[in-house]
Amino acid sequence: MALVRLLADEEMAPEARAVFAEIRAARGTDYVNDFWRALANDPASLRRTWDSVKQVMAPGALDPLVKEMLYVAVSIANGCDYCINTHTASARAKGLTEAQLMELVAVVGMASETNRMVGALQVPVDAIYREPR
Amino acid sequence: MALVRLLADEEMAPEARAVFAEIRAARGTDYVNDFWRALANDPASLRRTWDSVKQVMAPGALDPLVKEMLYVAVSIANGCDYCINTHTASARAKGLTEAQLMELVAVVGMASETNRMVGALQVPVDAIYREPR
Amino acid sequence: MALVRLLADEEMAPEARAVFAEIRAARGTDYVNDFWRALANDPASLRRTWDSVKQVMAPGALDPLVKEMLYVAVSIANGCDYCINTHTASARAKGLTEAQLMELVAVVGMASETNRMVGALQVPVDAIYREPR
Amino acid sequence: MALVRLLADEEMAPEARAVFAEIRAARGTDYVNDFWRALANDPASLRRTWDSVKQVMAPGALDPLVKEMLYVAVSIANGCDYCINTHTASARAKGLTEAQLMELVAVVGMASETNRMVGALQVPVDAIYREPR
Amino acid sequence: MALVRLLADEEMAPEARAVFAEIRAARGTDYVNDFWRALANDPASLRRTWDSVKQVMAPGALDPLVKEMLYVAVSIANGCDYCINTHTASARAKGLTEAQLMELVAVVGMASETNRMVGALQVPVDAIYREPR
Amino acid sequence: MALVRLLADEEMAPEARAVFAEIRAARGTDYVNDFWRALANDPASLRRTWDSVKQVMAPGALDPLVKEMLYVAVSIANGCDYCINTHTASARAKGLTEAQLMELVAVVGMASETNRMVGALQVPVDAIYREPR
Repeated sequence: MALVRLLADEEMAPEARAVFAEIRAARGTDYVNDFWRALANDPASLRRTWDSVKQVMAPGALDPLVKEMLYVAVSIANGCDYCINTHTASARAKGLTEAQLMELVAVVGMASETNRMVGALQVPVDAIYREPR
Repeated sequence: MALVRLLADEEMAPEARAVFAEIRAARGTDYVNDFWRALANDPASLRRTWDSVKQVMAPGALDPLVKEMLYVAVSIANGCDYCINTHTASARAKGLTEAQLMELVAVVGMASETNRMVGALQVPVDAIYREPR
Repeated sequence: MALVRLLADEEMAPEARAVFAEIRAARGTDYVNDFWRALANDPASLRRTWDSVKQVMAPGALDPLVKEMLYVAVSIANGCDYCINTHTASARAKGLTEAQLMELVAVVGMASETNRMVGALQVPVDAIYREPR
Repeated sequence: MALVRLLADEEMAPEARAVFAEIRAARGTDYVNDFWRALANDPASLRRTWDSVKQVMAPGALDPLVKEMLYVAVSIANGCDYCINTHTASARAKGLTEAQLMELVAVVGMASETNRMVGALQVPVDAIYREPR
Repeated sequence: MALVRLLADEEMAPEARAVFAEIRAARGTDYVNDFWRALANDPASLRRTWDSVKQVMAPGALDPLVKEMLYVAVSIANGCDYCINTHTASARAKGLTEAQLMELVAVVGMASETNRMVGALQVPVDAIYREPR
Repeated sequence: MALVRLLADEEMAPEARAVFAEIRAARGTDYVNDFWRALANDPASLRRTWDSVKQVMAPGALDPLVKEMLYVAVSIANGCDYCINTHTASARAKGLTEAQLMELVAVVGMASETNRMVGALQVPVDAIYREPR
């Protein structure tokens, strides 16, 4: 059960509805997932978050599928079930194959393992990696 | 200061030296970073970790640069300074540009933000994402 | 399903019942939430935890509502759904408004984003913040 | 050592310099901390992050000192040393006393303890907290 | 709902079935839990993970029950509900008593509390603990 | 640099000095590590934390070395360098061998890996582990 009301379109402030119109246009679908309906309780936060996500996830030096994969990887490390589900769906819609997903899972697991082993052993960063830039 | 001795080559058991020879051959350089010198205190763990890393990070359905980026993203989320430094260096050696790095940082930051906002609002996963497979 | 039995009052040791009496008196309600019923399997741990929570959350240099908000913020960062639900309820009972909750969510999200961006960029603490005290 | 160059003012793109001018004006000081100099390598990211921080941390339903305390609490939970140092300094500049800081530390510690105990015991959220909104 | 299909035995590749045969033999039971059925979508990852778990959790300098307790403690800190459930079951099968489990929970909670208090206060490691090895 | 002053004995309130006397007596050494000197700025918090640590880490259903190992494992998962250093030292003083430490590191790494793989694959807990108690 969400901590706040998941607002239906007709319950939202006009500023929130305007963001929903942009989300629908950008995604080419009428369906807007519930995270945004929760955020709609705070139209300023909804606006800022949507603008930021749109900017950050746009094609740039990295392609959108790689960005979605990075998003999924971070969501796994942070333990966000909601985000894992929604962004894996986005990644699949952008072409992620099952084989790629399984490799992503393996890399996330391996990184988590060595992250903790290095921390456990308290290994300082080698001088070779600490050159001034 | 590491919690265990960072073993010089001549201090290692033969099984550990054999792994070091493989690391050098795979990477085409004589330099082996200190994580492996710490792990060399437990040759079985060194062998298993190296074999796993080699398998997981090999080219497959995902290319090696994407895998390095995923590794860096997870290391940031887990707060492993050592891993951020070493795997960014590996990613740069595989072609990561500064513009790509800065976009990776932005995606990791954005995912971390929305991961926590979703959790804060306790939004359940939409039914649309929970279809049986 | 909890990992241990959630003890009904009549199943508890007398030391645990004594703590339950204190919880009821302090909160002015007969309802005691299930975390305490799980902890009641270890009366010493129940006693210590209740005494600590009571001391730490008491009015002091910070007022109880601010303390509840800090508790919620940490619970979000740690991903504890149970704690987010119960402590948001406590905060609301102490006067937290929906607008305040939505701002809390925004701050927690923003902090999580910049926490990871700083870590990603490995920025050392500026000298100006590291003066001896 | 930061992973990217900490840009001096004269090394920045004009868009980045414009953000720096805003930071200086908003804070009433010429000193800009190194996080922003790292971010200046990506002027779009610098602009977005500054605009977001400014909006989220502005006085609103919560006062700025409470927001700084929440920021610090999350930074502790996420283990961001840089952010703990800089945002504690901001909080002190906004009036945080030593007694308040020590209570904040106690609350963050206590929340972290009970967050993990609840998770350990796998206690489901009580029905009383899961009413539809 | 799992993100990938939980494969029934007859849906698996022969390499995956071979691992399942080993799991059944090692555990002395026909039941194989769903984590492995998810991993079976990537036989190479299934093989590597099973071989690693078997090696790491085998009796050695630490006895298997202590290893299971460490596994549970880490799973609590990482917030993995699945792992808390399955490895507590394994620990109980190896002799973990309810009193031991409750003490484990107390230690994990206490460590999480002081971990965050130390971080909050930014206490550097005492010189006495940083001697070269 | 700690965020608060690390108090010398002669700077502490009498209530804090009393705790220091207990720490010295319990540990059989005059040296008290800096975490406690930071906490001494808040004598009530110092008292509560010492009493709790003393109770939780005392011999009980689990022996003190196992408790120290659990403490270290959680500290690794939480990324607390200070705690890893001090509690590994405590564990060594209680008999932890280098071989045991290296196995602990391997278990913590392995748990972290599978914790994230399970989360990545969103595997629900098998019905067999969710029986009522």
